[in-house]
Amino acid sequence: MAEVSSQILTIGDELLSGDTLNSNMAFLGQRARSLGLDVRRVLAVLDRVEDIDAALREAAREADVCLVSGGLGPTEDDVTTEAVARAVGVSLELDPAALARIEARFRGLGRVMPASNRKQAWLPRGAERLDNVEGTAPGFLVRLEAAGRTRVVACMPGVPRELERMMMEEVEPRLLRLFDLSPRPRRIYRVMGMAESEVAERLGPVLGERPRGAMVHYRARAPEVTVVVDAVAEGAAWLAGLDEPVGRVLAGALYGLGEADLPTRLVRALARTDLRLAVAESCTGGLAAELMTAVPGASAVFCGAVVAYLDRVKEEALGVPAALLRAHGAVSEPVARAMADRARERLGGDLGLGITGIAGPGGGSAEKPVGTVHLALSREGACDHRAARLPGNRAMVRRSAALLGLKMVWDHLVAHGLAARDV
Amino acid sequence: MAEVSSQILTIGDELLSGDTLNSNMAFLGQRARSLGLDVRRVLAVLDRVEDIDAALREAAREADVCLVSGGLGPTEDDVTTEAVARAVGVSLELDPAALARIEARFRGLGRVMPASNRKQAWLPRGAERLDNVEGTAPGFLVRLEAAGRTRVVACMPGVPRELERMMMEEVEPRLLRLFDLSPRPRRIYRVMGMAESEVAERLGPVLGERPRGAMVHYRARAPEVTVVVDAVAEGAAWLAGLDEPVGRVLAGALYGLGEADLPTRLVRALARTDLRLAVAESCTGGLAAELMTAVPGASAVFCGAVVAYLDRVKEEALGVPAALLRAHGAVSEPVARAMADRARERLGGDLGLGITGIAGPGGGSAEKPVGTVHLALSREGACDHRAARLPGNRAMVRRSAALLGLKMVWDHLVAHGLAARDV
Repeated sequence: MAEVSSQILTIGDELLSGDTLNSNMAFLGQRARSLGLDVRRVLAVLDRVEDIDAALREAAREADVCLVSGGLGPTEDDVTTEAVARAVGVSLELDPAALARIEARFRGLGRVMPASNRKQAWLPRGAERLDNVEGTAPGFLVRLEAAGRTRVVACMPGVPRELERMMMEEVEPRLLRLFDLSPRPRRIYRVMGMAESEVAERLGPVLGERPRGAMVHYRARAPEVTVVVDAVAEGAAWLAGLDEPVGRVLAGALYGLGEADLPTRLVRALARTDLRLAVAESCTGGLAAELMTAVPGASAVFCGAVVAYLDRVKEEALGVPAALLRAHGAVSEPVARAMADRARERLGGDLGLGITGIAGPGGGSAEKPVGTVHLALSREGACDHRAARLPGNRAMVRRSAALLGLKMVWDHLVAHGLAARDV
Repeated sequence: MAEVSSQILTIGDELLSGDTLNSNMAFLGQRARSLGLDVRRVLAVLDRVEDIDAALREAAREADVCLVSGGLGPTEDDVTTEAVARAVGVSLELDPAALARIEARFRGLGRVMPASNRKQAWLPRGAERLDNVEGTAPGFLVRLEAAGRTRVVACMPGVPRELERMMMEEVEPRLLRLFDLSPRPRRIYRVMGMAESEVAERLGPVLGERPRGAMVHYRARAPEVTVVVDAVAEGAAWLAGLDEPVGRVLAGALYGLGEADLPTRLVRALARTDLRLAVAESCTGGLAAELMTAVPGASAVFCGAVVAYLDRVKEEALGVPAALLRAHGAVSEPVARAMADRARERLGGDLGLGITGIAGPGGGSAEKPVGTVHLALSREGACDHRAARLPGNRAMVRRSAALLGLKMVWDHLVAHGLAARDV
């Protein structure tokens, strides 16, 4: 099977000034990879006809498929369609069906279409219209045949919601018809609480000898390391055999296979039991609760939290004994345990998670430096504790503390056969 | 003053597969813009010598300054230095000072430098070394003189923390010496609780006639709209006169000028008063507390929160009367008011914020559809209330509800002369 090469061209002034993080570039890269396209270059240019034209001409020399986003709006800044027509050497033509759809969309909103939107119905002559279910701007696909080779330029709107739907529902089926693509298999291993260097060292022997075209990527965002193993079609069997040895060398640090993150897995696993979680958090300031409740369906498994930022709140709202706070300080094992117990009792949970620590930048001492955290998990008749010294700035310490706290809950479920990494 | 054109070249397989959001691209774009560089193209290529070489040769034809990130690590994947040397037509040379720094860094960590890191001390002949304060990989700057024109290629590591510091401390001072740059003035207006289309409509007359080179960008992320006005040096006077008319037409929806976000401003403003905030939140699940406590110094102004996700928690941990919950439902004005009052009393705040609503996707009804929220702000002797119907998915409703709640606190401080938008 021949390689089908592709480029991604994103258009918009805001992408060059850094005012917008280019999420369309990442989305199109992901989709292209999973389709089996070989992405060789991704770029962003200004909303200028000559710049877009030049980038398209370069792309057409190299790439079979050029995925383009942005610049299809109704304002004078939006010049992508004009630039594509120029690069391809055709004129623009009014597409009556496109115009009818745009007018209908405005009618549906009880409005008359402004004159400026009429521009969006002019497409390069010979282009195939791509319907936009989420907005007014139609996309279009230009197919060029020369010297026995098919090349495609697919233009999509820059609004992420519109782009994503059009890419998946309109562009991908056409690419699969036009090219001999074989979607690339991939495995994702999610690891928490082990340093990237240790993960890499343990995986070395397992991933060392790999078939042609297979690639391993490590993504580290404390306290999590995600290992992505990509293969080409020939490597599928090798890839399918990895789970067992990877699971063996990473042991309990490997909490999941695939896309879902820890809070999502935790909500799903708790939902299969009758257990509910309650949280008391100090240095994480609500982050552990926020991570849980960001998952749809959390209300079935999450009671709530007390964010006990001040010691007075730990005492009065949570019921941590003042003597304990005085004797050991708020960042200590006994206080973490008391927070976990009280959260469980006061909020009516089956499991209570307590998190206390020093996120910084202030508040550290020689004995308890910034990054010191105590985590505790309480259940009827027992309470586990774990201390850690977490690296990084305030945001990193908070994120690590919250996720490592949730990992304690996960590990408890796994130990009792109530959760598994590959579910 | 001549335009100094620039390109940004980011290197790394993970940037093309969409596995990483390209934040270095955005960071370098921002810095380049603020320095006064004219950024014409930003791109990402794979870790392959021939691809990097080709991109650099193209960039050198067009651009005076090429900012490069990534591919300076110790592994065999890291080929940026080799590719730059090839594009420039020089060999690699061991830089003894670079090697000494890398060895010293490992010594400082109590480790011996692995042999693979030696590679990082080989730089293109004639390049100027850029020290890396945050990591092992030195950067370097290549200066090319041809036909009376100076061109520069600056290579920096791909680790964001290392890149950011090297760009600001090493690269920018050199660029300011080598080129006649004039930093571009910009104004940022932060608006909350007004739709983007309304903001644009109100600002139309104020920003309509603008000097050459001035640009207006709208960034909308519900419930916030940020308006960025860029000018070139000649437009500085016009820009300086904008604050007054912009403030007049946007009125109370404009909460701040400049970079700082609402939670940061709120923590600062509360710190100047003796007022402390306590929160009771339901649908936002800890997000309001998390936003406040993400700001360093929050402990001086934030008591804590009760995340009352279940009604039982609203009753038992917070003390919302069961009768109120039964009569009006958890998402109602009386319950929001009771949550705000109880948060203030139970957590010992001067101000109490209550947030209750339906974030979806489940839980909506004809009477109370997804997106319905009730916000209340309690203080000694008074309690304000606000209802809203927020658009978007679960994450958007949660974010909007949390930020609009904090905006109520901000508006209260502004109304009492305790906060101002330009401080």
